Amino acid sequence: MKKITTISKLFLAVLACGVTSVYAQFGGQLVSPQVNPDNTVTFRFSAPTADSVVLSAQFLSENLPLTKGENGVWSVTTPPATPDLYPYNFVVDGTITVNDPNNVLIFPNERFKASLVDIQGQSPLMYSVLDVPHGKTTYRFYKSNTLNDTRPLVVYTPPGYDPQGDKLYPVLYLIHGATDTHETWYKVGRMNFILDNLIASGAAEPMIVVMPYANTGMTYQGAVAIAPPTDSSVNLFNEEIVKEIIPYVEKNYRVKADAQSRAIAGFSRGGRQTLDAGLTYPDVFSYVCGFAPAANVENLSNGTYASADALKNLNMLWLSCGTDDFLYQRTLDFAKKLTEMGVPYEEMYTPGGHTWMNCRIYLNEIAQKIFK
Amino acid sequence: MKKITTISKLFLAVLACGVTSVYAQFGGQLVSPQVNPDNTVTFRFSAPTADSVVLSAQFLSENLPLTKGENGVWSVTTPPATPDLYPYNFVVDGTITVNDPNNVLIFPNERFKASLVDIQGQSPLMYSVLDVPHGKTTYRFYKSNTLNDTRPLVVYTPPGYDPQGDKLYPVLYLIHGATDTHETWYKVGRMNFILDNLIASGAAEPMIVVMPYANTGMTYQGAVAIAPPTDSSVNLFNEEIVKEIIPYVEKNYRVKADAQSRAIAGFSRGGRQTLDAGLTYPDVFSYVCGFAPAANVENLSNGTYASADALKNLNMLWLSCGTDDFLYQRTLDFAKKLTEMGVPYEEMYTPGGHTWMNCRIYLNEIAQKIFK
Repeated sequence: MKKITTISKLFLAVLACGVTSVYAQFGGQLVSPQVNPDNTVTFRFSAPTADSVVLSAQFLSENLPLTKGENGVWSVTTPPATPDLYPYNFVVDGTITVNDPNNVLIFPNERFKASLVDIQGQSPLMYSVLDVPHGKTTYRFYKSNTLNDTRPLVVYTPPGYDPQGDKLYPVLYLIHGATDTHETWYKVGRMNFILDNLIASGAAEPMIVVMPYANTGMTYQGAVAIAPPTDSSVNLFNEEIVKEIIPYVEKNYRVKADAQSRAIAGFSRGGRQTLDAGLTYPDVFSYVCGFAPAANVENLSNGTYASADALKNLNMLWLSCGTDDFLYQRTLDFAKKLTEMGVPYEEMYTPGGHTWMNCRIYLNEIAQKIFK
Repeated sequence: MKKITTISKLFLAVLACGVTSVYAQFGGQLVSPQVNPDNTVTFRFSAPTADSVVLSAQFLSENLPLTKGENGVWSVTTPPATPDLYPYNFVVDGTITVNDPNNVLIFPNERFKASLVDIQGQSPLMYSVLDVPHGKTTYRFYKSNTLNDTRPLVVYTPPGYDPQGDKLYPVLYLIHGATDTHETWYKVGRMNFILDNLIASGAAEPMIVVMPYANTGMTYQGAVAIAPPTDSSVNLFNEEIVKEIIPYVEKNYRVKADAQSRAIAGFSRGGRQTLDAGLTYPDVFSYVCGFAPAANVENLSNGTYASADALKNLNMLWLSCGTDDFLYQRTLDFAKKLTEMGVPYEEMYTPGGHTWMNCRIYLNEIAQKIFK
C-alpha cells in the first residue's frame, strides 16, 4: 500500500486524535448514505478519476447517475423512498460494482458486496429498534460429523430466556439463501428486532430462532468458505439439520423437543432446503414455510417427499413469493400440485421481486402464526 | 438495476438450482482469495473494462499489479506470506478502492471496506479454530442514558460459562479503534478463538470479554451510525463505560464486581479511551493495557488522570506498539513520563505498523497476564 501510506498515516493520526475539523482536509469523512427527513436519500462517493458513477438501489426501478462535484466527490439525492431497509451499491464506469465505503452496514454475502440503507420514515417499521426488551443474538460453533467441519450457528434467544429455567421454548430454524451466510437473517433480515417487537406486543410466541450456515457444500474453517457450492449444498442439508443441528440445539438450549415445537422457514435455495427437510420429515417439523422457495415440484411425486397423507398432518405448510420474483411461477406450480394432492397450505404473494424486503414481510407474517 | 436485471435473474435462478456447471458461463464464481499450500495467495477480480487493477495487502510492502486474463478476470499470485490474517483490497484504475466481492470475510469498519485473507500455514496460529471447547459471542443491546441511545454490545463468554451458576468471572473490557465497530475485535481481532485457545491450554484465566461500540460521538439506532465522530468520542467514553456499560454487565452476567477483576484494553483511539478510563479511575480497573494507544501524555500531569500514587497501585499498566507504527513515539513518550513519575508499567514493542496483526499479538499476550 505504498502510494497511499502517507495519506493513510495522516488520516489515522487524525482519527486517533479525534479532531473533526481536519477530516475534511483529507476528504475522508463523507456522509453516505444521508437519509433526509422527507425520505429522500443523498449518497456520496469519492471517485476523482471516474467517468461515471451510478447508484444501483433496490428502492429504485432504474440505476440513478451521480453527479461529480468538488474534490472528486460524486453525489445524488434520490426521490422519496418507501421506508424500509434496502441493499444498494455504486457502479463505476459501467463495470466496477462497489459497496459504499462510508457505510458500516454491509450485506453479508459470499459473492457480492452490497451496502444497506435504512430509511426509517416517521413510523415504526417491523424491524425498527423500539423501546421494548431485546433478545440476544449469539454466534457459536458446533462440530459436524456429517460435514467433518466446525460450523457456525447464529441463535436468537428471546428476552427473558433463562438457560437454566423451567420454561421450554419452541424453535424456528431459519435458513438463508444461496451465497448468503448464517449472518444474513440477522444483519439483513433483522430477525432479532422483528421478533423482539412481535414478542413484546404479544403477537408472537416467545421462541428461539436458529440460523445455520446452510452452505453445506462449503467448509467453514473459522469463517472462510473455501470451495464453491456444489449440488450437495441442497442434498446434504437434510442430513445436517436432522443429525447435527437439531440435536445440538436440543442439547444446549431449553427447548421443546417435539415436532409441534419445531418450525422451519427459508428463502430461495434456503426455501428449497426448507421444503426438502420439512416435507421429507413431516414428523420432525410441523410448520414448513417457504419464502420465495426454489421449489422442486417433482419431489412431491417422485418419492422424495413424504406421502400426501403425511403432509396433511402438518400444522402449517406456507408458501410465499413476490409477484415479480423469477421464482413466482415455480411457487405457483408447487402450490397447484399441493392442491391436486389435497394437501392444505397457506400462501402469501406480495409485490416486488426476489428481495430481502419481502423476506422480512414473510418472517413477520409466519412468526405470528407458528406455535399457536 | 435495469441493465443487469436479466443477468441477475439468470444468475439467481442458477444459484437457486444449485447447478455448478452453469456458473462458469456467467463468470460468477471466481475463487478469491485462493490460499495455496506454499502460503502464496492467488487473488482474482473481474473488471473487464479496467485499465489497471492492483492488490493492496498488509502482507505486501508494495501494491502488486494483477494481470488481465480471459473474460476480463484479473489475477495475481503473491510471494509466500507469513501465516496470519491480513486486510486487503483492490485498487482499480489507480483510484477506486474495492473490497473483494468473492470473499465473505469483511473488515467491519465505518469508513473503509477491506477484505480479509486468512493464511493458516502448516501450524496452528493463535487464532486458529482448534479442536477445543468454544465460547459464545453474543450481540445484545442496552439502553444508555448517557448517550440517549440503544447501544450494541458484543460479549464473549468462555466455554462452561453458566449464567445461573456459582462461578463468577473476571471481565476484560476490549475497545476497538476509531472507525472500527463493536464487531471488529470479533471479526478481525478473532478474540473469541484466541481466548478459546488460551483458556483450553490453561494459559489464560477463563474470563468474559466485553466489546462496546465505542464511537460515543455517534448514535447507533439499530446499526446505523448517523453522524461523524466528534471530539466527544473520547470524552464521553469515560462516562459511558463507568455509568452504563459496567453496571449493565454486572447486572446481566456472573462476574466479580471489583477492580481486581476488571481489565481494560484497547487499540489506537480505543487505546486512548483505555488509558483515559483506566488512569482516571484506577479504583475501577486494575489492569490497563494500551495497544498502540493514541496516548495523550499531558493527561499524566494536567490533573486529568489520577495521581502517581494511585496509578502505582494498579496491578498492571501495559503499553505496546509496533516499531513502524506512527504512534510509536507517542507511546514511548508516554512510557518515559511514567518512568519519571515512578509509575511502574510493562511494555512490548513489535515489528510492523498500526495493524490488527499486532493487535492480536497484544491481546494474546495480556490475556495470559491478567487476573493472575
